Amino acid sequence: MSEATIERMAADALDIAASPFKKDFPLLAANPNLAFLDSAATAQRPKSVLDAQRRFYETMNANPLRGLYSLSVEATKAIADVRTSIARRIGAVDEAGAPHADEVVFTRNASESLNLVAKCFAPCALKPGDEVAITIMEHHSNLIPWQQACAQAGAKLVYLHPDHTDGAWRISDDEIRAKVGPRTRIVAVGHVSNVLGVENPVRKLARAVHANGGYLVVDGAQSVPHMAVDVRELGADFFVFSAHKAFGPLGIGVLWGRGELLERMPPLLTGGEMIDSVTQQDAVWAPAPEKFEAGTQDAAGIFATGAALEYLNETVGIQTAAAREAALMAYAMERLLALPGIDILGPHDHRARHGAIAFNVRGVHPHDVASILDARDVCIRAGHHCAQPLLAWMGAENLACCRASIAFYNDKADIDALIDGLEYVKQLFGRGE
Amino acid sequence: MSEATIERMAADALDIAASPFKKDFPLLAANPNLAFLDSAATAQRPKSVLDAQRRFYETMNANPLRGLYSLSVEATKAIADVRTSIARRIGAVDEAGAPHADEVVFTRNASESLNLVAKCFAPCALKPGDEVAITIMEHHSNLIPWQQACAQAGAKLVYLHPDHTDGAWRISDDEIRAKVGPRTRIVAVGHVSNVLGVENPVRKLARAVHANGGYLVVDGAQSVPHMAVDVRELGADFFVFSAHKAFGPLGIGVLWGRGELLERMPPLLTGGEMIDSVTQQDAVWAPAPEKFEAGTQDAAGIFATGAALEYLNETVGIQTAAAREAALMAYAMERLLALPGIDILGPHDHRARHGAIAFNVRGVHPHDVASILDARDVCIRAGHHCAQPLLAWMGAENLACCRASIAFYNDKADIDALIDGLEYVKQLFGRGE
Repeated sequence: MSEATIERMAADALDIAASPFKKDFPLLAANPNLAFLDSAATAQRPKSVLDAQRRFYETMNANPLRGLYSLSVEATKAIADVRTSIARRIGAVDEAGAPHADEVVFTRNASESLNLVAKCFAPCALKPGDEVAITIMEHHSNLIPWQQACAQAGAKLVYLHPDHTDGAWRISDDEIRAKVGPRTRIVAVGHVSNVLGVENPVRKLARAVHANGGYLVVDGAQSVPHMAVDVRELGADFFVFSAHKAFGPLGIGVLWGRGELLERMPPLLTGGEMIDSVTQQDAVWAPAPEKFEAGTQDAAGIFATGAALEYLNETVGIQTAAAREAALMAYAMERLLALPGIDILGPHDHRARHGAIAFNVRGVHPHDVASILDARDVCIRAGHHCAQPLLAWMGAENLACCRASIAFYNDKADIDALIDGLEYVKQLFGRGE
Repeated sequence: MSEATIERMAADALDIAASPFKKDFPLLAANPNLAFLDSAATAQRPKSVLDAQRRFYETMNANPLRGLYSLSVEATKAIADVRTSIARRIGAVDEAGAPHADEVVFTRNASESLNLVAKCFAPCALKPGDEVAITIMEHHSNLIPWQQACAQAGAKLVYLHPDHTDGAWRISDDEIRAKVGPRTRIVAVGHVSNVLGVENPVRKLARAVHANGGYLVVDGAQSVPHMAVDVRELGADFFVFSAHKAFGPLGIGVLWGRGELLERMPPLLTGGEMIDSVTQQDAVWAPAPEKFEAGTQDAAGIFATGAALEYLNETVGIQTAAAREAALMAYAMERLLALPGIDILGPHDHRARHGAIAFNVRGVHPHDVASILDARDVCIRAGHHCAQPLLAWMGAENLACCRASIAFYNDKADIDALIDGLEYVKQLFGRGE
């Protein structure tokens, strides 16, 4: 390829006026008028991911780990390759850069990954009087499991609140000092909030909790689709994400955990190939990651997850994706802030937001907003976004708001459709100025 | 269609000399010389299932339950339709025949379904001194969870053994009387054994455990692909199976449970849309089935599961499938029994076997048998088949055996390839007669 071609492609990739990536996504390609702004709930998948899933079934389909014949060996290798690839991409590597594939556990979704940590690791780490700290902006999946773990252990669940006085909605250093102390055994934090879009100060939280010998659990569901992740650099002890929000198939979650911690944890589910041996009254577990993977895994989904990570990191490039999203976010925030009668929840500064924009149309129920936009082929989400404590704390009416969320495949036309739709909503409800 | 055409099609469907169904399965169609005899581990999928999964991603892809826009509503409806279809097909219906869709819970696999019952229902039902009865032929997934549940509750795990003296390998009435008594709170039984292939006396076990106010859990992983199932007629309180063994996608398990029992059970996993409301320190669960479905479900897989059940029950017809398998089993057993040096594990009577034939080549390690057959494009499984206690009880050397398993898409050529392969193994190891 000539340098001129490469430069032109790079410029195309960064041109947010028209997305050069929509053509890779069958649903978006087939619906050119659709403004899909709900990627934070579930992303669309490129053709390469759908092809990979199908290719598995058509050419490798067999039960991995369970057979000696070639099909089954291929299936087993396909899973091992994706484990290695994930370990490498999230920085789960040793000093020499060799990936810790055995630290990558496949689950059904990020929720299951978080439950696995709260149910199987927390009991090893918590005793009565201990504290678990989370933020008020956690998704229910990184909140209810900790309620349960604390109730079971007699520990206390403590909430960190962001500082909104300067409009930045960051967890401040003071808040960390006040809430993460000697009794804090576990801090569990969303890397990026699915409502406010803010990136939480994960490294600072890591230092604070590690200073007292505690552990850091990071929910990367809303960061992996948008930014490069390095679990060592973040200081995470556990890191989870789901494939379906990162352009992969539904049904696959990832749990990464430090090897020695995974080793200490009992399995959550038992049966199938997660054992070394079984007698009538007892069983010996296999080492991680198999210990945590009871029953037949969705090998086709795992294979397709590998294709999704390759698409995001190599075909698109995570830097390109991040740059496109930043430009789209700047444009979207500029247009939304210029629209009277729209209340933004969370930071107004576009640089503080990743992926998600939460807002309300003053005087109109979010569900009505979403329904009216839908009729105009604009997909946003309305509701509590699995973050009821956050919405309650922010005083959101009906515990609900609208959320538009952005992925690299979006373009200006999607944002324009959203703005036009919101103008129409305001007119309809007599809120036009 | 004329009657003659229908009759010819019916005759074709029952002709085991050549399978009229292989053409529907992309992997089998692309590999005409492959003898795939490992369907008990994971079945192949017809094109209609792969098409359905892809169609979901290409036309309906959105996060079900989470959005108000049309794509999301379609996704939600697709899941609800499959729930209804499963309820109807397994006889989870009221007196008037109306399906109990809310009794159908989606999990990742049958193992998770069984764990859910053992972890969330058993603690409500067991107290110290109580007994759980299972059979010695259970798959680890219907065995280890009960070891754990018993250990936690201080209950005793009791094993029912089949009677092999008459060669039928059935759980006898005497054995049921001896092992299922007033202390038995739960009987958990495989409908069909994945090693012996025998159908267990589920109705008798239901009567015995219900007589004492206990509950019956049925693992249908190896029956749903082969026979019509009616949970009411079986007397089951819980019934589980996995889609991937029934020609559906990987990653989908089903748990059916009687409504009032599901209502009593707490969830296993928390987070996402399985709640009614969440405050900082507490959460209220949604009703079943959502209560048990934390995080984003694999809606595409569930949609494809619907297509698999439709293919099996309507395109093929479960009676046709069963009749083909019976004829193939008769042929396979006749040929195997005529082969010197082959030890059959379990019943020799082909009518007593569904799907699975376990055997050993005398003096040859099962792994060697499987590897040599693989080189000849014959896929069987060798190992402990997740049934170590059974193999130990039967005295199987190395806790291992070979297993060939049959689905309706197999034909005589597959069996012939197996027999030829076994002849070759014997020759190679100097065991030819």
